Amino acid sequence: MATASPIPHFQEELEQLKTRLLEMGGLAEDRVRAAIRALVDRDDALIDHVLSGDQPINELHIEVDGRCFKLLALHQPMAIDLRAIMSAIKINTDLERVGDLAVNIAEAARRYLRHQPVKELIDIPRMADIAQAMLRDALDSYVRRDTALAEHVLNEDDVLDTLKTDVFRELVEFMVHAPSTIEPGLDLILVSRHLERIGDHATNIAEDVIFMVSARDVRHHAPHS
Amino acid sequence: MATASPIPHFQEELEQLKTRLLEMGGLAEDRVRAAIRALVDRDDALIDHVLSGDQPINELHIEVDGRCFKLLALHQPMAIDLRAIMSAIKINTDLERVGDLAVNIAEAARRYLRHQPVKELIDIPRMADIAQAMLRDALDSYVRRDTALAEHVLNEDDVLDTLKTDVFRELVEFMVHAPSTIEPGLDLILVSRHLERIGDHATNIAEDVIFMVSARDVRHHAPHS
Repeated sequence: MATASPIPHFQEELEQLKTRLLEMGGLAEDRVRAAIRALVDRDDALIDHVLSGDQPINELHIEVDGRCFKLLALHQPMAIDLRAIMSAIKINTDLERVGDLAVNIAEAARRYLRHQPVKELIDIPRMADIAQAMLRDALDSYVRRDTALAEHVLNEDDVLDTLKTDVFRELVEFMVHAPSTIEPGLDLILVSRHLERIGDHATNIAEDVIFMVSARDVRHHAPHS
Repeated sequence: MATASPIPHFQEELEQLKTRLLEMGGLAEDRVRAAIRALVDRDDALIDHVLSGDQPINELHIEVDGRCFKLLALHQPMAIDLRAIMSAIKINTDLERVGDLAVNIAEAARRYLRHQPVKELIDIPRMADIAQAMLRDALDSYVRRDTALAEHVLNEDDVLDTLKTDVFRELVEFMVHAPSTIEPGLDLILVSRHLERIGDHATNIAEDVIFMVSARDVRHHAPHS
């Protein structure tokens, strides 16, 4: 009994995988926050910073995939451990896309800054706060295997959808009455869609967590829909 | 030698998995085609058909995930076979999202039909044709493990991006000169973005195929970017 059994080794590797996913989530969240702050504060240098800073997430994306591959190849996990790795493969993809969406937001912000401001931005920063909190909660629910928290994330998605519709209606009003607001208004609408998609990625993660923990598939019969 | 070895059994299961993915891809493609035809032909009944028809893809989504789980749990595949299953997990997600995007297109088409047509639709059906071909080629490249075809898909993405930009510029012109075109113009812009995202999903699949076959990760150092 002096030699190490393979099981703790697997659990250790799995912990490291979780740490990497949390790190990736933190980076993705930071980038979304920076892109939105750049838009609100009309900060060109911060836009540059977001546009040129996707390498750390992309490197983690490749690393996490490699870790999942190794865990599957070397440890042949079963049951919840296998579902945890399958979830990690998907979560990794979701987080990488969130990083891309931060770039999309920064690109829209860059175009937006070429125009006079359409309006004071209130709902978009609120949408960003909600999307970031959803992402954080979704990842926490993965790490802690906390299905109640995952269910909470699913419910938050409706709030985001409502705000997106409000943003759309309000901006169309501006655009109809002042043609000079059409181009910048379009970019704000695109930003709100990007934020909605960040919420969708958080929702995907939360659904994976529920599946992972309970082996119950809520994806196409979600209680909230 | 009379008993079956486990290896052909795995290969048989893997073939069935590929068949399911092709089936899912065919359904996703059909739904995108129908959504675009409904938009172009102003066909309300066809919109209803798309909006109410996502169950078959969603069922396949759950089935494919289950097949991947079983293949990993029962056969402990290695090397290219393991990469093929990891790719299938991701492709399954991509195809389910393409199905969702068909719904998004149908929703935009429904709103668009409440207005007079903004213009004759030429670039949007072209974008749809390209996106569908990319999806088909990406799945074929997976099934045949054909990296040349996968590289071709990556190159097609630029064509789609150019068309998206053309659509955007042309519609902004309409919107600036005729406020009545703002709302329907916005929906056409959203449709072009949804089609661009379908191309992105095809690109993701093609990148996975290159990784699967060559164990070479092109995702963040793609030659086309």
